[in-house]
Amino acid sequence: MFDSRIYNFSAGPSALPRDVLETAAAEMMNYGGSGLSVMEMSHRSSAFQRILDDAESDLRDLMGISDRYSVLFLQGGGTLQFAMVPANLMRKSFKADYVLTGMWTKKAAEEARKYGDVRIAATSEPSGFTEIPSVGPDDFRADCDYVYVTGNNTVFGTRWQSYPDTNDIPLVCDLSSGILSERIDVDRFGLIWAGAQKNIGPAGLVIVIVRKDLIGFASPGTPTMMNYKIMDEHGSLYNTPPTYAIYMAGLVFKNLKSLGGIDAAEALNRTKAKRLYDCIDASRMFTAPVAPDDRSRMNVIFKTGDSDIDRQFVEGAEARGLTGLAGHRLAGGMRASLYNAVTAEAVEALVRYIEEFDKAHAGGSHVPHQNL
Amino acid sequence: MFDSRIYNFSAGPSALPRDVLETAAAEMMNYGGSGLSVMEMSHRSSAFQRILDDAESDLRDLMGISDRYSVLFLQGGGTLQFAMVPANLMRKSFKADYVLTGMWTKKAAEEARKYGDVRIAATSEPSGFTEIPSVGPDDFRADCDYVYVTGNNTVFGTRWQSYPDTNDIPLVCDLSSGILSERIDVDRFGLIWAGAQKNIGPAGLVIVIVRKDLIGFASPGTPTMMNYKIMDEHGSLYNTPPTYAIYMAGLVFKNLKSLGGIDAAEALNRTKAKRLYDCIDASRMFTAPVAPDDRSRMNVIFKTGDSDIDRQFVEGAEARGLTGLAGHRLAGGMRASLYNAVTAEAVEALVRYIEEFDKAHAGGSHVPHQNL
Repeated sequence: MFDSRIYNFSAGPSALPRDVLETAAAEMMNYGGSGLSVMEMSHRSSAFQRILDDAESDLRDLMGISDRYSVLFLQGGGTLQFAMVPANLMRKSFKADYVLTGMWTKKAAEEARKYGDVRIAATSEPSGFTEIPSVGPDDFRADCDYVYVTGNNTVFGTRWQSYPDTNDIPLVCDLSSGILSERIDVDRFGLIWAGAQKNIGPAGLVIVIVRKDLIGFASPGTPTMMNYKIMDEHGSLYNTPPTYAIYMAGLVFKNLKSLGGIDAAEALNRTKAKRLYDCIDASRMFTAPVAPDDRSRMNVIFKTGDSDIDRQFVEGAEARGLTGLAGHRLAGGMRASLYNAVTAEAVEALVRYIEEFDKAHAGGSHVPHQNL
Repeated sequence: MFDSRIYNFSAGPSALPRDVLETAAAEMMNYGGSGLSVMEMSHRSSAFQRILDDAESDLRDLMGISDRYSVLFLQGGGTLQFAMVPANLMRKSFKADYVLTGMWTKKAAEEARKYGDVRIAATSEPSGFTEIPSVGPDDFRADCDYVYVTGNNTVFGTRWQSYPDTNDIPLVCDLSSGILSERIDVDRFGLIWAGAQKNIGPAGLVIVIVRKDLIGFASPGTPTMMNYKIMDEHGSLYNTPPTYAIYMAGLVFKNLKSLGGIDAAEALNRTKAKRLYDCIDASRMFTAPVAPDDRSRMNVIFKTGDSDIDRQFVEGAEARGLTGLAGHRLAGGMRASLYNAVTAEAVEALVRYIEEFDKAHAGGSHVPHQNL
């Protein structure tokens, strides 16, 4: 039982900015003099339309999204996007090439096979997904409808430092755990989607940024809710959207703008990640398995190599108010997720704990580093 | 601008209990000593698992749902259910019979045509959807996979007083605007689904109550998120569910139990609806177009017959803090939604306004009632 807020390193749903939560609490009974909670408002009301319009325009400002792209606020999580991407974007050859960098791309590719011819263009599976494969335009079928990548791998802690050149093939990116954490050039992508529950807001909202010329080709049998074109034509209001999640996302966007936007967030994220990786690399007990150039700044994977000690580490962390540090079952060890809302103070607390744990458990004598 | 909370008659998203919103606000920064907001919690944490388990067991208690049924917490709104019902339940003949009582059934039937042979078994369209058609077992094809009804019609304000006998054909019911408002015999249904944003909680959550023997027949090409069986096997945690909406629904369930459960809610809903219909019937200017036996207790439709005067009425209501009274564009006039969270006090305030408006606008002389 904690009297006050603790440090949250959960991979998602995950930490939200304190200011945003305080605003949400303060506005719960009466939003902006409406006499209602946002949760109680008709999605057809002018008050909610303003919330939705502001959220979209703030996101466009933050990311530099041009009018060539539609921004959609949808439901169904990443798993529905795994189906919606092929259902909408497989439109000519019904072929798509996927670059496999972990569990999420694997699931995306499996789901896409329900719609067409899916090929794994490259994979980092042989290395245990500890790196990003090197790929270029020659690795993709020239006639495929799109190339699919996962921008930041939440489970294995990798990140595309520079996205592959696909010539004119539209590049689709699952940016769930990377969006808003660093500057990206949206114009290089055909479609970017992101589940909200990492850097954006509460679970139950997915944001899709899609080049307008790529939509409108879904087959007539496509379920209405899976058709980007219908969602776009109705401004994400074909049916009742997850109104409160959109409101929370809007608060996060305004908060991020007030803190200096994506460039400021990126600078802070670089500092936070460097501090933690440096601490792990300098320790005697812990290793970070991902290749240095491919390390995620959002999800830092580390381990001792002994699952009992890993468990002790995680339990000790929980006891002192550092939560969400257990690694994904496929990756083992520990994972510290350092999304935008995770403060430098939280990272300092984790670093202190790692240093203390390392000192206490590695003992007085020097234990050789496994990777040395 | 209102300093305090107003009376909310919105059709959905709609009023939530004041106590529930106050609890949510109080727990926003630190839920139950966890040191986190529910929005920030991993859906794999034991704290969230307890929230989900409690929500399910409280709903089972409230509605008397037996172990023969699974309860699923899903996303995508009614529009995705329009597709999920046929994608999962069309399993033998690929035929389904729909009873058309308004716009929502029409949309459901259109979507189901993507999956099989859909027939309108009966319709109240000729009467402008102001009644529930009389149907019996002979009206349905004996080999059809299910019969589909909309339990309470939100747009036209009708309600099934007694559900049709379908012999052994599974009866599917969209109970979005009726769930938890009155006692229903779940065992009579093959599947009940309800969008949360009327009597349950925030938008972005759909609850499906489905007889276990009816699931497991979706075709292999069905998107994962549309497969009831997969959602069931993972206890609604195949992927990240809308965690905060589930938490809010759980608070509403606990609140309803503390107030005496569905029987108490039904008694209050009967009183509230009678008070409003009586006032409308006794007025000189307003009529309630729905046949008395088929009148919804959740959505009360009324009008003056003059759209300018209707607009004046709605604007005057807004000014005095009675919101959400404009009728759906297909039905015109006014609609007062009296969901569980709409208090008797709110209904009294509306009745007083109707009486004042009637007196002021019908003038001193008696204006004959249109229906007399």
